[in-house]
Amino acid sequence: MTPPAIYLDHAATTPMLDEAVAAMTDAMRRTGNASSLHTAGRRARRAVEESRERIAAAVGARPSEVVFTTGGTESDNLAVKGLYWARRAADPRRIRVLVSAIEHHAVLDSAEWLAHHEGAEVELLEVDEVGRVRPETLRAALARDPARVALVSVMWANNEVGTVNPVRELAAIAHDFDVPFHSDAVQAVGVLPVDFAACGADALTLTGHKLGGPIGVGVLLLGREVALTPLLHGGGQERDVRSGTLDTPAVVSLAAAVEVAATGSARRAATIAGLRDDLVGKILAAVPDATLNGDPGTGVVEGGPSRLPGNAHLSFPGCEGDSLLMLLDAHGIECSTGSACTAGVAQPSHVLLAMGADEATARGSLRFSLGHTSTPADVDAVVAVIGAVVERARRAGQPAAVR
Amino acid sequence: MTPPAIYLDHAATTPMLDEAVAAMTDAMRRTGNASSLHTAGRRARRAVEESRERIAAAVGARPSEVVFTTGGTESDNLAVKGLYWARRAADPRRIRVLVSAIEHHAVLDSAEWLAHHEGAEVELLEVDEVGRVRPETLRAALARDPARVALVSVMWANNEVGTVNPVRELAAIAHDFDVPFHSDAVQAVGVLPVDFAACGADALTLTGHKLGGPIGVGVLLLGREVALTPLLHGGGQERDVRSGTLDTPAVVSLAAAVEVAATGSARRAATIAGLRDDLVGKILAAVPDATLNGDPGTGVVEGGPSRLPGNAHLSFPGCEGDSLLMLLDAHGIECSTGSACTAGVAQPSHVLLAMGADEATARGSLRFSLGHTSTPADVDAVVAVIGAVVERARRAGQPAAVR
Repeated sequence: MTPPAIYLDHAATTPMLDEAVAAMTDAMRRTGNASSLHTAGRRARRAVEESRERIAAAVGARPSEVVFTTGGTESDNLAVKGLYWARRAADPRRIRVLVSAIEHHAVLDSAEWLAHHEGAEVELLEVDEVGRVRPETLRAALARDPARVALVSVMWANNEVGTVNPVRELAAIAHDFDVPFHSDAVQAVGVLPVDFAACGADALTLTGHKLGGPIGVGVLLLGREVALTPLLHGGGQERDVRSGTLDTPAVVSLAAAVEVAATGSARRAATIAGLRDDLVGKILAAVPDATLNGDPGTGVVEGGPSRLPGNAHLSFPGCEGDSLLMLLDAHGIECSTGSACTAGVAQPSHVLLAMGADEATARGSLRFSLGHTSTPADVDAVVAVIGAVVERARRAGQPAAVR
Repeated sequence: MTPPAIYLDHAATTPMLDEAVAAMTDAMRRTGNASSLHTAGRRARRAVEESRERIAAAVGARPSEVVFTTGGTESDNLAVKGLYWARRAADPRRIRVLVSAIEHHAVLDSAEWLAHHEGAEVELLEVDEVGRVRPETLRAALARDPARVALVSVMWANNEVGTVNPVRELAAIAHDFDVPFHSDAVQAVGVLPVDFAACGADALTLTGHKLGGPIGVGVLLLGREVALTPLLHGGGQERDVRSGTLDTPAVVSLAAAVEVAATGSARRAATIAGLRDDLVGKILAAVPDATLNGDPGTGVVEGGPSRLPGNAHLSFPGCEGDSLLMLLDAHGIECSTGSACTAGVAQPSHVLLAMGADEATARGSLRFSLGHTSTPADVDAVVAVIGAVVERARRAGQPAAVR
């Protein structure tokens, strides 16, 4: 019998909430294409529209601003490329794309594709040593040539080191220059106070599997007056912004998860942050030369914590992150070296490099991410072995890539 | 209590197979991002790779040719735009896009977008009076200027009238001119003998919810040597062709459905065609001036039936299709006027117009589509009311749009 794993990789994918599983299980048994006009179709359509209203209410948006997609990657691609195409079509001079240097690859690589393929001029907004985009950085970049800017994209909170950005202030600055602002908030919903209307963003990405809903479904919140060119063409679903058969079971399940996640976020965040602080403190006591990367997490950014409550990202000098990961895994502890999407890639994290870390530090780091199922026992399990694991990884020197 | 509906809209969405529901239900309870390196991630990855092998085996492809997407619309967009971009990048003269006039909007609108946005010259391949692309039509279109052709896309079987195309012959003709060939086979898998290697296509679309799997997951089968530019950028999943977190539960469920669907397709097709022929015969007896559109279904195309076994598409002179649909729905019978994706759109079907139908005939038509849950009782239910329903729709004359 394998002992139950200590799952500390919630930022990659968090277990589905019971409410989301129940909603999916129920909806899977009902047939009906939400575009069909008959009774089964209209029933599916009603389920989709009720889900749209529930999600909108939970995140401070209007129902008409909820565009269903298949997840974070599609929402980010749609926002970055769609805003770019629409802005450039309205004014061919608008080809500057300003994105932060610490974005997820779904934003970074979309921007890069626009540069190579669609004539965009991509500029990476630099971050400070904790990984935060400073308002003056964005203002200076915009002021250089505001009439030529297509869009700005800055994530709500970084997926690797957990640093929260001042999204409301950044959106306001973008609007000072009449530039649309997108934020990838996939790590934020459920633990930070995400309110679409209040934050002022024109477009915002959220996804199911980071907040207790299913994989394969997400949302792009899109302001009603915001022009955006579609990425997928076809049946014209979702205000013509996103064609494709609506995935009714996944949408219903997502709504159940978003409702639970958003309504209980403050309490959940406090609980998770308490466990996280305990974990970080005890790791630093066990491995005195380890360092916590990113924001210390003691501050406040626009009414919420300055760091994702569940994020503990640490560097262990003299270790390879992949070795640490595999040694911990052998003890039943599951964590990651950074973004799951690029796991196994032998390059140091672009996020840590952007924060000014050297390559060795970047490679010797580990992300523990806590979530709604985390317990004090999970913390104890890590603390019980982390000293020995780090010792062993150091003795191994520079091991070959572990897969 | 509402009586159980007579569901005859399987071409829009067919009920999930028990095997697919069971696989999804089981997989939803297991957490793990298939890109993560720890035990839970590797378990998810194994589940994905086993699913890839099962799907490949069921449809005559190699596992490495299976690219997971979120469904038919995404696969079609990826094939049409991705092949276009890759071909044009290799040779800027290649901007001709040849697609049949009866494609689904996911192909047609993708091609149209390329025309408006990326300089493509789109040419619609005409069809004969049953809705079939004749080989000589494709050969003539290619021969006009082969060096400037980017791609050809012709669907395996039409979603509205059910006509099957000679895909193997069409693919061979495209290859005579060194042009890649894509086929949207979403209606074909599970009822026609779809074999990727044998048909010779370079790219082929299939989707879950048309064959008893879940909505929100599909596949683009893509030959290993075929160059294709991605549509979604990010983590680099799926050979860099399709970024985004792999939806492990949906993929596992899809594999269960494809295996059942493809292995039992000949027997299932015979059963469904028997019911369909009974339905058509009895409707024509009850409404003598009704006509069956598309191929009669008595022939053979490349080893399979010449018409989708479950498709019965009829025109009822003097009626509005939407009225018929709503009147039947009031009797608990669920069918459609054509493609679900464009239901409610007040335009006559582009498919029927391409086949030479006049507008009135096109508007007065109805699609019954049978599937794996259909029974003789379903046929009897339609036959019991169709005469009266048509009478009533005729008396209503030209009613206002019914929603």
